[in-house]
Amino acid sequence: MKYKKINDSWVIVLRKGDRIIEKLTEFVKTENIKSGFFNAIGAVSSVELAHYNLEKKRYSSKLINKPLEVVSLMGNVAVKEKEIIVHAHIVVGTNKMELYGGHLKEATVAATLEVIFIEFKEMISKKYDEDTGLNLMELE
Amino acid sequence: MKYKKINDSWVIVLRKGDRIIEKLTEFVKTENIKSGFFNAIGAVSSVELAHYNLEKKRYSSKLINKPLEVVSLMGNVAVKEKEIIVHAHIVVGTNKMELYGGHLKEATVAATLEVIFIEFKEMISKKYDEDTGLNLMELE
Amino acid sequence: MKYKKINDSWVIVLRKGDRIIEKLTEFVKTENIKSGFFNAIGAVSSVELAHYNLEKKRYSSKLINKPLEVVSLMGNVAVKEKEIIVHAHIVVGTNKMELYGGHLKEATVAATLEVIFIEFKEMISKKYDEDTGLNLMELE
Repeated sequence: MKYKKINDSWVIVLRKGDRIIEKLTEFVKTENIKSGFFNAIGAVSSVELAHYNLEKKRYSSKLINKPLEVVSLMGNVAVKEKEIIVHAHIVVGTNKMELYGGHLKEATVAATLEVIFIEFKEMISKKYDEDTGLNLMELE
Repeated sequence: MKYKKINDSWVIVLRKGDRIIEKLTEFVKTENIKSGFFNAIGAVSSVELAHYNLEKKRYSSKLINKPLEVVSLMGNVAVKEKEIIVHAHIVVGTNKMELYGGHLKEATVAATLEVIFIEFKEMISKKYDEDTGLNLMELE
Repeated sequence: MKYKKINDSWVIVLRKGDRIIEKLTEFVKTENIKSGFFNAIGAVSSVELAHYNLEKKRYSSKLINKPLEVVSLMGNVAVKEKEIIVHAHIVVGTNKMELYGGHLKEATVAATLEVIFIEFKEMISKKYDEDTGLNLMELE
């Protein structure tokens, strides 16, 4: 992973073998980033997608192990107590241009992932919500 | 719906039962926002997707009533005469990680929708275009 | 193509018949833009999607000739030596709300394409990488 700050934005480049959520979390911690959002395109060699079941209050998931384009990756960074939460949803594409997607549990970068990260100077807080079983943004 | 301004951006959180286009329109009106664009991720319990037929000059649409991840939501805000137009396209994902998408007519939020809205200080105008039957951006 | 600058952002409107990559490249050259990223929604009448095979070091591609919503278009602009590289990934949707997507080779706009382009004041460099066969971002 390499990154560079341009104004209030960061360009982050992940390389082959990097795990996306792990690396973005590392970036946020290292650079003391309070919150922000990001977009990315690139490719992965495997991805674990998830779908939340609101009644059962748990994610179902699906692991796909093949070369996939990252056609869209959209996410944000917030903080629950002192834990950094990188929340992202992803669309991946096969060599037949068919798409799969959902909540991104984790993915391993293939050739590269080009991330544009917009940093906010204030914290966005999340709090565990009994009703949904999820960590939801708390805006006062 | 709750929201918070951070620099020239807004973080908007929609909750269960909120209708996306309706709430974003309400936000834009209440905060006197001239124009802008947004990205969002989250989940919906139903969505009405549309596809424009340029020859017939009308949308066909499809209503999906089941729990869906909002894998991508991308849109902008412009003004036609004094009417606010929230224009958005959406990708939704099923519990099999299959995706559907198109022009977003309306959708009802499930657990939450996390929206990042970038505000512009100038108006973007739209005008009805006879040729396509659509409201198109007019940049002088 | 028409465009208008608002703060450090540009709103770019493409019209029927415009080729997306060609027009965005023309915009970047004409306005002497160093780098940036963009999102867009709209519609196309044809699109050539691609998927990179990292082992064979080449793209496979698929041409779709029918009316499609541009459900998501996400990309960035960088420079390899003096060549401008507009890199974008796209999700398109049929009248059945089914989606296809991948790396965008080129597409022809149908009714319109609404692009939000965020300009950076510094250059992002790309360099050919033997290992992957791709032009990768080089951040010093």
